[in-house]
Amino acid sequence: MPLGNVDRFLSPTGRDLHASAIRRMGTVAERHPDLISFAAGYPAADLFPLDELRAIAVDLLQGDGDVVQYGPTSGYTPLVEALTGEMARRGVTVTTPRELLVTTGSQQGLDLIARVLVGPDDAVLVELPTFTGALSAFGNARPRWLAGVRQDAGGIDLDDLARVTASLRRHGTPPKLLYVVPNFQNPTGRLLSQERRLALLEWAEQQDCLIVEDDPYGALYFEGEVSPEAVRPLKAADRSGRVIYLSSFSKTLAPGFRVGWMVAPAPLVERFEIAKQAGDLASGSLDQRIACEAMRRGVVDRLVPRLRATYRARRDALVASLRSRLDGRLSWTVPHGGFFLWATLPEGEQDEALLERALEERLIFVSGSAFFVDGGHDTIRLAFSAAPEALIDEGVARLARALGRGSVARS
Amino acid sequence: MPLGNVDRFLSPTGRDLHASAIRRMGTVAERHPDLISFAAGYPAADLFPLDELRAIAVDLLQGDGDVVQYGPTSGYTPLVEALTGEMARRGVTVTTPRELLVTTGSQQGLDLIARVLVGPDDAVLVELPTFTGALSAFGNARPRWLAGVRQDAGGIDLDDLARVTASLRRHGTPPKLLYVVPNFQNPTGRLLSQERRLALLEWAEQQDCLIVEDDPYGALYFEGEVSPEAVRPLKAADRSGRVIYLSSFSKTLAPGFRVGWMVAPAPLVERFEIAKQAGDLASGSLDQRIACEAMRRGVVDRLVPRLRATYRARRDALVASLRSRLDGRLSWTVPHGGFFLWATLPEGEQDEALLERALEERLIFVSGSAFFVDGGHDTIRLAFSAAPEALIDEGVARLARALGRGSVARS
Repeated sequence: MPLGNVDRFLSPTGRDLHASAIRRMGTVAERHPDLISFAAGYPAADLFPLDELRAIAVDLLQGDGDVVQYGPTSGYTPLVEALTGEMARRGVTVTTPRELLVTTGSQQGLDLIARVLVGPDDAVLVELPTFTGALSAFGNARPRWLAGVRQDAGGIDLDDLARVTASLRRHGTPPKLLYVVPNFQNPTGRLLSQERRLALLEWAEQQDCLIVEDDPYGALYFEGEVSPEAVRPLKAADRSGRVIYLSSFSKTLAPGFRVGWMVAPAPLVERFEIAKQAGDLASGSLDQRIACEAMRRGVVDRLVPRLRATYRARRDALVASLRSRLDGRLSWTVPHGGFFLWATLPEGEQDEALLERALEERLIFVSGSAFFVDGGHDTIRLAFSAAPEALIDEGVARLARALGRGSVARS
Repeated sequence: MPLGNVDRFLSPTGRDLHASAIRRMGTVAERHPDLISFAAGYPAADLFPLDELRAIAVDLLQGDGDVVQYGPTSGYTPLVEALTGEMARRGVTVTTPRELLVTTGSQQGLDLIARVLVGPDDAVLVELPTFTGALSAFGNARPRWLAGVRQDAGGIDLDDLARVTASLRRHGTPPKLLYVVPNFQNPTGRLLSQERRLALLEWAEQQDCLIVEDDPYGALYFEGEVSPEAVRPLKAADRSGRVIYLSSFSKTLAPGFRVGWMVAPAPLVERFEIAKQAGDLASGSLDQRIACEAMRRGVVDRLVPRLRATYRARRDALVASLRSRLDGRLSWTVPHGGFFLWATLPEGEQDEALLERALEERLIFVSGSAFFVDGGHDTIRLAFSAAPEALIDEGVARLARALGRGSVARS
């Protein structure tokens, strides 16, 4: 007898899963190779250091079998050491390897945090809009509240944070953790000031709350616009161990290796590591060694300035096109690092309807509402990271046509 | 103020996590390089086809940037196609790519199944003893019952299955899924007969239950002892779509790539894929391509006969040593494939106490009780896969000394 409808077999989590809007766009893009995509936050593939990666792979695969054997769940020891050095450069002292866990990309870090810390009686705070992968990870843990805090041009709004916190306390569910992306936030591209970072730490202390600091883009500040001090992590000022810090090689080397890491107090890392055992045993052995060698040989250090320059040039191209083609119709914040530009649509325009028309023009981006728990339909995210400069103006021209057809339809 | 005890931040899952006894042994082994290990089920590192892997890596990294870019969550398309072909060779027809999901090792497959299917009101059945990674994954989903079914020399005991099923039904929680490792089970090494496999399918149909079939060792049958037909998966006879089949490259190519796959009805795979998005976005791009190329170039096909011969020779060495040194004191089942020999201790001996004494003799193995929900203290698992033949007899000599010291202590 055929199985029939499978709903009876799903767990509460299995029933509530929501597919990522960004990943869905990726599938659309694969089917239409003539599309211009401002959708996925993919790094620029033309900058991947393939020659150096090839040399590293050859050397590694000339060694012994350990390079493709199972490894410790906590991570390849020399990589853990190299990352301890990298954290020091970011202003964070890792005092023991037990404070650092290698993860299968930062996404796994988010997932481990959600599973180990978030339960059905908890309240989790996120900036709104925020990274969809975090919404999925925290949502799958089914907290009582997944509550949003507003942002202004400077990032998370501290008054709104106080308001939401008080409201949750009145409901008997004080927040357990706050998720933030302080450097060139996904999706808004905003940079949180150091003053606000310190205020968040103070808030966490007062509320006995944890902060999850997701930092994939910190290295990608645009030189001349932002100083290295401005991207200094919250974790660097974390005296009490309230910050769980996440970062990754996905934006500074290549994402296909699925190597990220987290830094947190040892008793928490111990729990994350046990959860990771059941999740995937360990991250890829060869991938971890390649990432480690790429750090040791200076590949990452040599690459990062080129990434900054390339992404800045693409940001410039996007902003110039928007100014020339859509000034007065679209409004946006100019990002000073990272991959994303966040734009607000003209009144009466709606993100998903616009995306449908854009698709007819062979352009995709991500609807702003994907980054909210609900609402946000007057916004869109334009990723400039993966679009070659030559195509950016054509992409904006298509966006202008899609917007133009909307006004015609309404008039 | 320091964070203090972190227990107040843990979710119910986070509080209940149990570290894997096998992974813990791995940590012990790293600290004592002069140990002989019969503990972890590591494949033989000396057989990894490093030269061919190096050639593949060089060719791949001479291509375009896609090789280290983000990829689709469902898996690298040519790998999905190659695996569809591999499943056909195993007797399983995959009718659409939507029935197959590439996973970050089989462990991730288990974890996705647990999260998408298992909730707090459910009952999950496992063979006892069973793979600890499955116990962790299902345990983390916190089902009401994680119930064990006994095995006899032929594998899972159908009478006990009927008994446990009836008991769960009386409690109002009919089983939702049964987890089995039919080929050279971990930890017992047993091969389930085709007759019992068909009986399991019939049972699942009657009970409206799913079966999770974990098959990492099927290719590693010992030629001359077991026919290829004997390892044919349950999934090959699954007409209604009740079997979720898992396999991996970890035992036939190398585990460091973290590439596994699952085959299930498309509506279930769709859910697993969405859960994987939040888990790690996608499995490693380079790893998947290497595995794919290793299949295409015949590396896996050429390797597997050598693996069978090597593991059989190691099994032979282990059994010969046990016969000569421990006959009458230890009893065991001779496995006809896979990595493991399961042994029962003399009366009065206890697995953990023996392991402590073995450690003093510089030998490790895994306590049998690690593979049970509770009990099993009169058993141990000896993995012969990673131990060079030359060391096996010395390992057994150490085991004999550790056992001998136990009798002295008791006398």
